[in-house]
Amino acid sequence: MELRKDPITRSWVVVGHGEEVSRPVEPCPLCPATESGQTLLRLPADGPWKVRVTPHPAPLYRIEGEVGRAAEGIYDKMRGVGAHEIVIESPVHVGTLSRLSDDDIELVFEAYKRRISDLKRDSRFKYATALKNQGPAAAAEWTHPHSEIVATTFVPRRVLYELRAAKSYYEEKERCVFCDIVRQEERAGKRVVDTQGDYVAFCPYASRVPFETWILARKHNYQFEAPRAESRRKNLAALVGRTLRRLEQVSDAYHMVLHTSPNTNVPSGHITGYWKTISDDYHWHIEVMPILPKGSRSYALKEVYFNAVMPEDSAKHLRGLEPSL
Amino acid sequence: MELRKDPITRSWVVVGHGEEVSRPVEPCPLCPATESGQTLLRLPADGPWKVRVTPHPAPLYRIEGEVGRAAEGIYDKMRGVGAHEIVIESPVHVGTLSRLSDDDIELVFEAYKRRISDLKRDSRFKYATALKNQGPAAAAEWTHPHSEIVATTFVPRRVLYELRAAKSYYEEKERCVFCDIVRQEERAGKRVVDTQGDYVAFCPYASRVPFETWILARKHNYQFEAPRAESRRKNLAALVGRTLRRLEQVSDAYHMVLHTSPNTNVPSGHITGYWKTISDDYHWHIEVMPILPKGSRSYALKEVYFNAVMPEDSAKHLRGLEPSL
Repeated sequence: MELRKDPITRSWVVVGHGEEVSRPVEPCPLCPATESGQTLLRLPADGPWKVRVTPHPAPLYRIEGEVGRAAEGIYDKMRGVGAHEIVIESPVHVGTLSRLSDDDIELVFEAYKRRISDLKRDSRFKYATALKNQGPAAAAEWTHPHSEIVATTFVPRRVLYELRAAKSYYEEKERCVFCDIVRQEERAGKRVVDTQGDYVAFCPYASRVPFETWILARKHNYQFEAPRAESRRKNLAALVGRTLRRLEQVSDAYHMVLHTSPNTNVPSGHITGYWKTISDDYHWHIEVMPILPKGSRSYALKEVYFNAVMPEDSAKHLRGLEPSL
Repeated sequence: MELRKDPITRSWVVVGHGEEVSRPVEPCPLCPATESGQTLLRLPADGPWKVRVTPHPAPLYRIEGEVGRAAEGIYDKMRGVGAHEIVIESPVHVGTLSRLSDDDIELVFEAYKRRISDLKRDSRFKYATALKNQGPAAAAEWTHPHSEIVATTFVPRRVLYELRAAKSYYEEKERCVFCDIVRQEERAGKRVVDTQGDYVAFCPYASRVPFETWILARKHNYQFEAPRAESRRKNLAALVGRTLRRLEQVSDAYHMVLHTSPNTNVPSGHITGYWKTISDDYHWHIEVMPILPKGSRSYALKEVYFNAVMPEDSAKHLRGLEPSL
C-alpha cells in the first residue's frame, strides 16, 4: 500500500491497499464486557468509563513507520502511515450519539479534542479529525454508538480546497468567508435550523444533498481543539444533539464530519509556515451529510452535485420537527 | 431549479431540480423505427444514418433562457440553462460502442466533435463535452448504444482543477504536465496498456479505481474538436475500441468522459481572456472509470480515494487481455 499524489488534481490516492481486513463484530468489541484493544483515552479518568478511545482493529492507515515522502520522476509518493481510532461514545450497546444527554455528548467532543491534540503532537501528521458514520447506509461498522478519529500525513482534498478558498477570500476582503456566511444566514433566517448561544445550525446555500446541515460558531476560531469556556462547550453539545435528533427524522443514515485546521505543530520550515499561514483564515465547523438512498448515477450527475430539494425548504422542514430527547 | 456556487469550494451545485422526469424506454426511442425527437445531426448526411444526435427527452438542463447570473448577498447563482443531447451510436439496438468497426467509432467521435463545436458557438456555454455511461451500474438510460453531449454555463469542478493545475505547472516548468506524464509513462512502460500512432492508453499513476485508463495524444493540443488528420482520427478510434474491449473483460460498467478545454469563443472581456489563457496549457484526453460493485462507504473512504489494486497490476492485466473485435 502506498499514497500517490495525482499530478493533475494534486489530491492523494491510496493505492494497493488490497481487500478490506475483516473486523470483529460478535461479541461486540466496543462493549465494556469485552473491552478489547488498547485504551488510548477513557473519560472520566476514574470509575466506569463513559467514553473510551481504542485503535481501530482494521485501520485504514498504519500508525508505525516513517512517511517516506519521495519522488518517482514527476510523481510524488509516500507510505500509508496514519492513525485510525474508535471513539466509543457510550458503554451502552444500544443507542445513538443523539440520544445521549448534553453532558455525555460534551464528553464525546472532549474525547475528540484530546485525541486530536495528542495526534497533532506527532509531526508526521498534517491533519487530524473526527467523523461519524451513522447507520448501515453510512457504513457504520458496529451498531454500538461510536465515531472515529483519523490522522493523515496529508490534508484531505475538500479541506484543502476550503483552506485555499478561505485564504483567498481573506486576502481580498480581509474578512473570514465563514464569518460572512454565518452573518448572512442569520440575517436571511430562511436556511437557519436552530441556534444556541454562539452556535448556529443551518442548511448551506449550495447544499450538496437534501437536509445537509452545518454547525458553526459565530466567533472566529480555526481550531476545533482550542480551549473553550464550559458554557460554550455545553451550547455546542446541546445544539449538536438537537440537530441530529431533527435529522434522524428525515434520514436514518448520515456522515458527521469535523472540519478543522491542519497541524500547525510540525517542525519549522517552509511547509509549517505554509500551514500556519493558511490556517489563520480558516473557521472550524461540523458538516452533517444525510445519506439518501440512490441507485447508480450517470457521470453527468457525478460531475456536478444535483440536490432535489431547495436548502430553504430543507431548513423549514427541519425547524418544524421536534428535537427534544 | 437554479445553480448555486458553493462559496467555500467554488463549485456549482444544481438545487431544487426535483425528482427525475420519466423518460420513454419502450418501444426504444433510439431505434430508427421510432426515430423520436428532433434530429440535431445525422451521419452520414445522406442515406440511412449510422449516428444520430437528438435532444435528451428528460434533460438535466434547459436549453432556453438567459443565464441570469446574479448575486444573493455574498453568494452567486444562475439559472439551470444548458444543453443535454443523446448521441445514438448505431441504428442497431443491440451492441456496444466497443463492438463497432473502427470506421464507425470514428463516426461517433466525429459527431462528438461537430456537436461540441456547434454548442461552443453559443456564448452562454462555458464548457461542452461528451460522456458515456456503459452498463446499468453506470446508469446507462437505454440499452441501445448511446452517449451524451452536455454543455454547461460553468466549467465542471474536476476539469477546473485540471486547468488550474496544468496552468501552474506550465508557469513553473514551461512544459505541459500531460505531455510530461505521457513521456514518463512511455519511458517506464509498466502502466501502459496499449498504443496506436500518436495515442497512448495507460493506467494513471494515482488511479482512483482499479483499471482506470486514460487515452492521451503525445502531441500537445488543448481542444478535442480541433481539426485532425484522417490517419490520426483512425488511430484514436482504433485505440478507443481496443481499450474498451479490454476493459469490458474486467468490468461491464464504466464511465467514459472526454476532458477538453472550456469554450474560448465567448465574447471578449475579462472572463474570455481568462479561459483563453488557462486553456493553452491544457491537454485534451479521455478518462475511462470502471464501476466496480461497492456497498455503502465510510466517510473516511469518501474523503480519499482508496484503490485496492496497484495501477501497474491493472495495466499488466489489461495488456494480457485479447482486444480483437
